[in-house]
Amino acid sequence: MQDAAEPTEVEAAVAAINSDMGMLWMLISAILVFFMQAGFTLVETGMTRSKNAANIAMKNLLDICVGSLTYWFVGYSLMYGDTSNGWFFWSGLMQGEGADLLFQTMFAATAATIVSGAIAGRTKYSTYAIFSIVMTALIYPIAGGWQWQGSGWLTELGFIDFAGSSIVHSVGGWAALVAAYMVGPRIGKFVDGKVMSIPGHNQVLATLGVFILWLGWFGFNGGSQLAWGGADSIAASNVVLITNLAAAAGGLGALITTWIWYGKPNLPQTLNGALAGLVSITAGCGNMSTLGAILAGLIGGIIVVFSIEFIEKKLKIDDAIGAASVHGVAGVWGTIVIGLWGIDGETGIGLFNGGGFTQLGAQATGVVAYAAWSIGLSFIILKILKSTMGLRVSEEEELVGLDLSEHGEIAYPGKRER
Amino acid sequence: MQDAAEPTEVEAAVAAINSDMGMLWMLISAILVFFMQAGFTLVETGMTRSKNAANIAMKNLLDICVGSLTYWFVGYSLMYGDTSNGWFFWSGLMQGEGADLLFQTMFAATAATIVSGAIAGRTKYSTYAIFSIVMTALIYPIAGGWQWQGSGWLTELGFIDFAGSSIVHSVGGWAALVAAYMVGPRIGKFVDGKVMSIPGHNQVLATLGVFILWLGWFGFNGGSQLAWGGADSIAASNVVLITNLAAAAGGLGALITTWIWYGKPNLPQTLNGALAGLVSITAGCGNMSTLGAILAGLIGGIIVVFSIEFIEKKLKIDDAIGAASVHGVAGVWGTIVIGLWGIDGETGIGLFNGGGFTQLGAQATGVVAYAAWSIGLSFIILKILKSTMGLRVSEEEELVGLDLSEHGEIAYPGKRER
Amino acid sequence: MQDAAEPTEVEAAVAAINSDMGMLWMLISAILVFFMQAGFTLVETGMTRSKNAANIAMKNLLDICVGSLTYWFVGYSLMYGDTSNGWFFWSGLMQGEGADLLFQTMFAATAATIVSGAIAGRTKYSTYAIFSIVMTALIYPIAGGWQWQGSGWLTELGFIDFAGSSIVHSVGGWAALVAAYMVGPRIGKFVDGKVMSIPGHNQVLATLGVFILWLGWFGFNGGSQLAWGGADSIAASNVVLITNLAAAAGGLGALITTWIWYGKPNLPQTLNGALAGLVSITAGCGNMSTLGAILAGLIGGIIVVFSIEFIEKKLKIDDAIGAASVHGVAGVWGTIVIGLWGIDGETGIGLFNGGGFTQLGAQATGVVAYAAWSIGLSFIILKILKSTMGLRVSEEEELVGLDLSEHGEIAYPGKRER
Repeated sequence: MQDAAEPTEVEAAVAAINSDMGMLWMLISAILVFFMQAGFTLVETGMTRSKNAANIAMKNLLDICVGSLTYWFVGYSLMYGDTSNGWFFWSGLMQGEGADLLFQTMFAATAATIVSGAIAGRTKYSTYAIFSIVMTALIYPIAGGWQWQGSGWLTELGFIDFAGSSIVHSVGGWAALVAAYMVGPRIGKFVDGKVMSIPGHNQVLATLGVFILWLGWFGFNGGSQLAWGGADSIAASNVVLITNLAAAAGGLGALITTWIWYGKPNLPQTLNGALAGLVSITAGCGNMSTLGAILAGLIGGIIVVFSIEFIEKKLKIDDAIGAASVHGVAGVWGTIVIGLWGIDGETGIGLFNGGGFTQLGAQATGVVAYAAWSIGLSFIILKILKSTMGLRVSEEEELVGLDLSEHGEIAYPGKRER
Repeated sequence: MQDAAEPTEVEAAVAAINSDMGMLWMLISAILVFFMQAGFTLVETGMTRSKNAANIAMKNLLDICVGSLTYWFVGYSLMYGDTSNGWFFWSGLMQGEGADLLFQTMFAATAATIVSGAIAGRTKYSTYAIFSIVMTALIYPIAGGWQWQGSGWLTELGFIDFAGSSIVHSVGGWAALVAAYMVGPRIGKFVDGKVMSIPGHNQVLATLGVFILWLGWFGFNGGSQLAWGGADSIAASNVVLITNLAAAAGGLGALITTWIWYGKPNLPQTLNGALAGLVSITAGCGNMSTLGAILAGLIGGIIVVFSIEFIEKKLKIDDAIGAASVHGVAGVWGTIVIGLWGIDGETGIGLFNGGGFTQLGAQATGVVAYAAWSIGLSFIILKILKSTMGLRVSEEEELVGLDLSEHGEIAYPGKRER
Repeated sequence: MQDAAEPTEVEAAVAAINSDMGMLWMLISAILVFFMQAGFTLVETGMTRSKNAANIAMKNLLDICVGSLTYWFVGYSLMYGDTSNGWFFWSGLMQGEGADLLFQTMFAATAATIVSGAIAGRTKYSTYAIFSIVMTALIYPIAGGWQWQGSGWLTELGFIDFAGSSIVHSVGGWAALVAAYMVGPRIGKFVDGKVMSIPGHNQVLATLGVFILWLGWFGFNGGSQLAWGGADSIAASNVVLITNLAAAAGGLGALITTWIWYGKPNLPQTLNGALAGLVSITAGCGNMSTLGAILAGLIGGIIVVFSIEFIEKKLKIDDAIGAASVHGVAGVWGTIVIGLWGIDGETGIGLFNGGGFTQLGAQATGVVAYAAWSIGLSFIILKILKSTMGLRVSEEEELVGLDLSEHGEIAYPGKRER
């Protein structure tokens, strides 16, 4: 009896400690993902005009402020369907969901933030505020529940999306595309059928933003292991390693593509390529060899350059920072690639070998489902907002810049120096 | 005998591991709090004129350099009264206080840094250097010891200040107010009795600074649990979650307040609101429900907007970035609110229920004690400095900017482009 | 029997958990070291002209992209001589090297990045790309293997370089000096035998960069403990504490030196001083008392001011941001100081007491070996590159700025505002 009982004491202690370590890793990951909000702010401001910089900062602040509150109030319950934990309004201190709720909150805020960049420079702040609430309270949590709730219909189908290429990024990316289409292009973007370049005002800040996003992504993907200890430690470490390799390959892919295609290696596209590499490995970071991850990221970085051109020149949609390409298109690619050369994270056996078509089919089903959900719901909500509050500021307000017209001040009041 | 001995082995192992995990969490928290120095630098430079940007960077560098050394040399011993550990001058490698000393050091540097923003644009660098030494070696450590030394007089009274709304932030904030008063307003701030706006030069950097401060605060508050493992893991995670909710509510509170009051949602005030939300939960983050934290932050974010106006327009004190309001006034509010709707962190029972008046009394006593200490000592030291070294640069030096007059160069030498 | 077997179960559990905690600490450290790439980007852009800012961002992005891939592909195997782990090309998911490989990768990228700042403003991007590949795939890994492979010849000699004052920083610093010499000075740097100042364009970004580097260095040095748990927790915490003290002392050393020597405390030199303080403690952070660390950093911060002047005015080499002084010269000092007042990390006994000359001899041998290796190999490779691809852009390209000539766009297109 004693022999049988003794291991239990040690095992129980180990399990408790693993739980503690897992909570620590998730908390640190949540903190890293929080920092991505700063990264988005810098990428979006740096890649757009200075007269809208304060407005973008205000949109990103709104996303994290509103997202933290709505996701706590209703989103988390909606997503995980756990009514005993949910509706935190009525509860006092919780019994241990702190790190998990915080981690999931940051994902919801990320999904909302993706939209803000695409529609920079002409969207009403009040309308954006409503959209941000709907995104974090409704669109994202319901979509997320299909897979991450544990017994959602996509989970049952065998769909794999480890950290959210589809669930977070393509949902945000498709909403961004719909929003950019419905808000319409910035004045001066399309002139006499020609596509004009509206360069960003600070590529150094955009670069810093990408480094911060890359950093935060280590928590975004690595924390999605949701645990630490034993096999989880090794798996989460590999996730972070693989994430870095895909980002590096994505940056290099875009750098080389622009070098060949434009004649010179291009900074903004290299930045987009690194981000696309990150999005491309977000779904598969638990199901890829290192080489597979590099190829996924590399191709993602190449795709994004052409996707940005396609959306701008063929679809004539003015996505101010390429958000639909970086998050939407690369998100689709990152989801699909698992069906091509994904492997079982434990055995290393290719998923395609053991019934790959099924896996590819499951991935494609998820891609279509998330696209349909995000495009459809975004369209309906923006349609309603358009016919009630209006989506767009007036022409004069746009020309003077949203900083002054929407917030009554400018981001860089250097000329009023005293 | 064996039965009695066996659990001890496992328990001892668990205790040792918990100690290791606690040290890891404290070290990571210390690293996060260190990063707040970068956040303060960006907020202070972004919210003031470009001609003083290098001077502010130099003041913040001084705070962390001087603070790290003085707190190691004398502050830590003074605060914790542990002469065997203290006076590290004479010791070799220490036996395990590394993470704790580093964590506490960063708090001392924070208290000093709060002052630098308020007196931006007209204060002598040499005088500031002396004040920074006194702050980290004397004013803060003695005040901190009243509560955090473990058996200080405020601890005995039942005073609660988990991570320093009063001990760090209001001590820094009151010193900032006294300093701003004694140094006097910047030239051009009050003209013919009218209050003039002197806008900052880079709101994007200020926004990045607030994101960095928000990030660092997760370590500031979460690390103040001083442990990890078992109940401590859950408690520290909840502290971080609650800190985020209060920050979000604070930002939103200021955003909505300015939208109603000014007619447009204001960026600098939203930034101040998020910081005020953070300060408002710093004392009570171990003693609040999630809803209580949101209310504490929300009210903090509203208060700060009016407090900044009051200090500027009624008291006619030129606090260049609103430091006295963000840290001092919100620090008082964050300390008091524990006596209003604080709860016992373990049982969840309201502190007011079980003798709330006593708790409110303890909180008020602490508030008054820290205000008196910080205002009194700052006044005396600045009075001495004023009559010896002088507090303020000359009018010409102020007009040309402190970068050139105090440091011989400017922050953005763009015009000398070659 | 049972008595003998039982401890083993607990001990095995403790060992497994320590391994898990060690992996967590290394992963977090790797993430911190990754962030140093952002710090380098900001320091280098901030301290040079705005017309080359995008080019510098592109060089730093290249370093992390190329470095991540080459070090994974060949560098790690070359450095640690572990062919079973190496050549990851052929392997699927690895069995636990994820955190270690990522950590080591970031060191390789750091060594490469050091070079980019010195040769800013006139170097061909294509040539730099080749050099970056050679640095991360060859120069650094072979040099690193001498010591960190575990049984390298410098290890056998008793050489101490805990986190790479010599192995990373002086290797990078010497390569930077050789490269700056061979590329030649920027136009306008030396006019009629006089040394002209070419000030950086954004000291606030440079300051932020130094704070980010300082932050990342906590992982750089602390993670080099390569473990957590028991004595390792205490040792790693002390490493981080000591790193902070040396950085603070270095910053203060340069601040005071410039105050005395130039008449005013100088921001760029204070920034260099803090970095020099960090480099100065990188080798000895496991073998220093706190006081010893402060002295090492303080002297490093003083040395760097004079070294920068010496290289510029006496050697007439145009090192655009002082990289050879900060990383090379301070790296030598940080390696040598262990032979002067280094202590045994466990016993606290001075290394000089127990045969100090031998220790000083071992340190000097390492310094000479790394200098010879880095200078020699860099010279040969750059000589080849010079006679094939060429090192330098044309005069017109340099004058217009590398952003436009090498990348077809500028970092701050503010004038094209619309």
